[in-house]
Amino acid sequence: MYQEKWKPDPTSSVPLFQQIFQFIKEKIRHGDWTVGTKLPAQRELAREFGVNRSTVVAALEELKAEGLIEGKYGAGTRVSSQTWQTLSPPPPDWNTYVQQGVHHPNLRTIQEINKAEFYPNTVRLGTGELAPELLPIQQIRELFKHAPQKLDLGYEDPRGNRQLREEIQAHVRQRGILTSTSSILIVSGALQALQLIALGLLARDSTILLERASYLQSVHVFRSAGMKLCGIPLDEQGIMPSALNKLKQLHQAAMLYVNPSFHNPTGIVSGEKRRSEILEVCQQMMLPIVEDDTYADLWLAEPSPAALKAIDTQGLVLYLGSMSKALSAGLRIGWVIGPEPVIERLADIKMQMDYGSSSLSQWVVTQFLSSSLYKQQLTYVREQLRMRREKALEALEHYFEKIATWNIPQGGFYIWLQIKGSVPMRQVFEKALKEGVLINPGYLYDRYDNTHIRLSYAYAAPLELENGLAILAKVIKEFSK
Amino acid sequence: MYQEKWKPDPTSSVPLFQQIFQFIKEKIRHGDWTVGTKLPAQRELAREFGVNRSTVVAALEELKAEGLIEGKYGAGTRVSSQTWQTLSPPPPDWNTYVQQGVHHPNLRTIQEINKAEFYPNTVRLGTGELAPELLPIQQIRELFKHAPQKLDLGYEDPRGNRQLREEIQAHVRQRGILTSTSSILIVSGALQALQLIALGLLARDSTILLERASYLQSVHVFRSAGMKLCGIPLDEQGIMPSALNKLKQLHQAAMLYVNPSFHNPTGIVSGEKRRSEILEVCQQMMLPIVEDDTYADLWLAEPSPAALKAIDTQGLVLYLGSMSKALSAGLRIGWVIGPEPVIERLADIKMQMDYGSSSLSQWVVTQFLSSSLYKQQLTYVREQLRMRREKALEALEHYFEKIATWNIPQGGFYIWLQIKGSVPMRQVFEKALKEGVLINPGYLYDRYDNTHIRLSYAYAAPLELENGLAILAKVIKEFSK
Repeated sequence: MYQEKWKPDPTSSVPLFQQIFQFIKEKIRHGDWTVGTKLPAQRELAREFGVNRSTVVAALEELKAEGLIEGKYGAGTRVSSQTWQTLSPPPPDWNTYVQQGVHHPNLRTIQEINKAEFYPNTVRLGTGELAPELLPIQQIRELFKHAPQKLDLGYEDPRGNRQLREEIQAHVRQRGILTSTSSILIVSGALQALQLIALGLLARDSTILLERASYLQSVHVFRSAGMKLCGIPLDEQGIMPSALNKLKQLHQAAMLYVNPSFHNPTGIVSGEKRRSEILEVCQQMMLPIVEDDTYADLWLAEPSPAALKAIDTQGLVLYLGSMSKALSAGLRIGWVIGPEPVIERLADIKMQMDYGSSSLSQWVVTQFLSSSLYKQQLTYVREQLRMRREKALEALEHYFEKIATWNIPQGGFYIWLQIKGSVPMRQVFEKALKEGVLINPGYLYDRYDNTHIRLSYAYAAPLELENGLAILAKVIKEFSK
Repeated sequence: MYQEKWKPDPTSSVPLFQQIFQFIKEKIRHGDWTVGTKLPAQRELAREFGVNRSTVVAALEELKAEGLIEGKYGAGTRVSSQTWQTLSPPPPDWNTYVQQGVHHPNLRTIQEINKAEFYPNTVRLGTGELAPELLPIQQIRELFKHAPQKLDLGYEDPRGNRQLREEIQAHVRQRGILTSTSSILIVSGALQALQLIALGLLARDSTILLERASYLQSVHVFRSAGMKLCGIPLDEQGIMPSALNKLKQLHQAAMLYVNPSFHNPTGIVSGEKRRSEILEVCQQMMLPIVEDDTYADLWLAEPSPAALKAIDTQGLVLYLGSMSKALSAGLRIGWVIGPEPVIERLADIKMQMDYGSSSLSQWVVTQFLSSSLYKQQLTYVREQLRMRREKALEALEHYFEKIATWNIPQGGFYIWLQIKGSVPMRQVFEKALKEGVLINPGYLYDRYDNTHIRLSYAYAAPLELENGLAILAKVIKEFSK
């Protein structure tokens, strides 16, 4: 019930603890809080209701007395399974439903990050999106002033808005990719593309190869569909072709997921030669590739080499692009480019999952790509990111010189900070959050990793970034002792 | 490759058939058309390229001669599996990938409908969305003129934009539902809610009870997750409680999906008494309910009785609402309301599937609900739908009096037309489509049905509607003979 709006009324003649007791009782009675629901901590409840902790304690005592909640020391307070004696007939056992669903829950740390991002006054050092002040809100407002009378807001073609696909066709030519509009599918962000691939193209027990570390480890798209992930070691050029070859054969892998340009989280850019090698190995093994190119437009010094898809002459590569990183994550627009039968299959599933992406968002992206707006946004964002990257690097040199090493990213959002020696990373995460600093620990991207932190210079304001890094360095030093 | 943009250049010195030959060869060489891809029919190719059929035949002959395609009479022409001898090394076998994916493909008729909806000059008699001219484009443009500087376009809270959830909380009070913002999850349309429920709350071999017929039969959300659907017979009040009881026990069903207000496709409205009975049976059996209330706002005479969720005091009901039917399907905004642990679980999966719905769409819906705009839209849409319903009923009386019976819908979009005697419905569908009329056959909603057609008066313009119905009547009469 985080961010609940209700608060007890201090001017009422009913005591505050009684009001809270009644409020929670209603929640339980109406089934908003079902049997087994864990109540927030007393401290949290007190903050949310704007009362003293002792008032919360009094309310909880009443609830216990009525048999509505039960508390085991250390395990927190839960809605009592005896509730059905108090409120008959018994409610359905939702907790069993929640547990038996086939999709895996998010990693605990990710769940905590997803929530903590909405705490006020938290410095977000790991967030993989542009700061709100870098988004082109003003330009979007302008666009709508001149929106046509016939703006199409019905359900779209299964592959997405045709005009947008034409713009994307032109857009990816800069990455060296020649394709046709019928080979393009509009999706609600690259993550949805992965979901469609998992459900549309792979048998349940397939193995997916990916970089070790990889963004893909932090979500359960493939694992929830019954698939295994197998990490390939990286050198400074990205995945090592020899290891790729060996692991593909060892695991009979069905697909390779790779992010060769400004890799999330390490920032690595694979060079031209390495790209050819990867492609060649995959061609020989007939191993399809999912190429995640979502950070391609965010180069800071020079563009990365042509996409794998550009040098692929066999339809081996499914190419993923996105507007989330350079334009706006909130639009939820990305795309997949691949062989037509594959695109047709993915479009067919998308129609069964959400009937297509927001027409409004598709229209906005079309306008950005078909005018100079997107180019202007890129110029602006690159300039801002360069400045923020410098600030971050300065702060690192100041606060982390003795305790960590790091790369200097040539594009994208991330610095892959490596702590010298090992630290209890989960505890660092918790302690930093207590001090108002939210980080993305490396174990989200490689579960055996205990030395890295993914830093992002895209979100926090420069001053926040510096303060946040100072606090983080202090926390790490505490745990290193 | 439907709706391909490329056309041969008639002013070129290269013969048209040669140009087409080269174009298709490139498609095969680049892996856009992989081994086994079925080529469109000659007639279709000729239309798309704007050439005579004989030109297409000549191009295909060349491709055959080079071993790039192979044709079996009656089975169509496909990209040859010998291609790898022509173009080495061999491309990956994408068709196997397409076939082994766990998600079911759409029903063939649905696939055809999804495509045919984008053919020009087709009268769409079955389409379940508002006609483009009924969408509030002008109002949306106006809104953006006054959009705030701080329009939030980043990733949203896992449950969706907070302000929108507050508006929805107020909005559903009209349906008798009292809830809190933390019990509401914003989704990309009600279909996505079903996807989240399938993946988040149910074991693989669960059985879902639903109306027979049901919209849910036309998508594979639950079946693709390994679940079974079991239809409950309907009377004029909706699902029959006695049958519900029996079938739940027989199948150990895990959930009931029900659409008690302006049911899709039959138009049935369950009365107050029936609603209580359904809820009571489910309470006694501890059977959770998914209540699909997406047509609730589109009453034409009077609102339907309070939602099941409104009379549910135990958190038995997951309630689905949507903006797709009355405001705009292209926005892709719907919601689920349910017990907090359930909502938290579904939000967690949504974050792994698409990171939330379009912020732009969420903002627009918030503006509509927080002002008088949504109410105005409803008034306008209801008036238009009443008028269109009358036109449809007049045309039915004129053309179908002797060959069919039908209901007079009190809300929603649909007339459930029952043909007297049985007709080969699939052939009726094909023949009507050839004559430019697109229908939704009843077997999409109940696979054993061979007598119904779902008509929608929401999409086709009144004159089109009449012409379309005249053609449909003619086609049906041909097959009835």
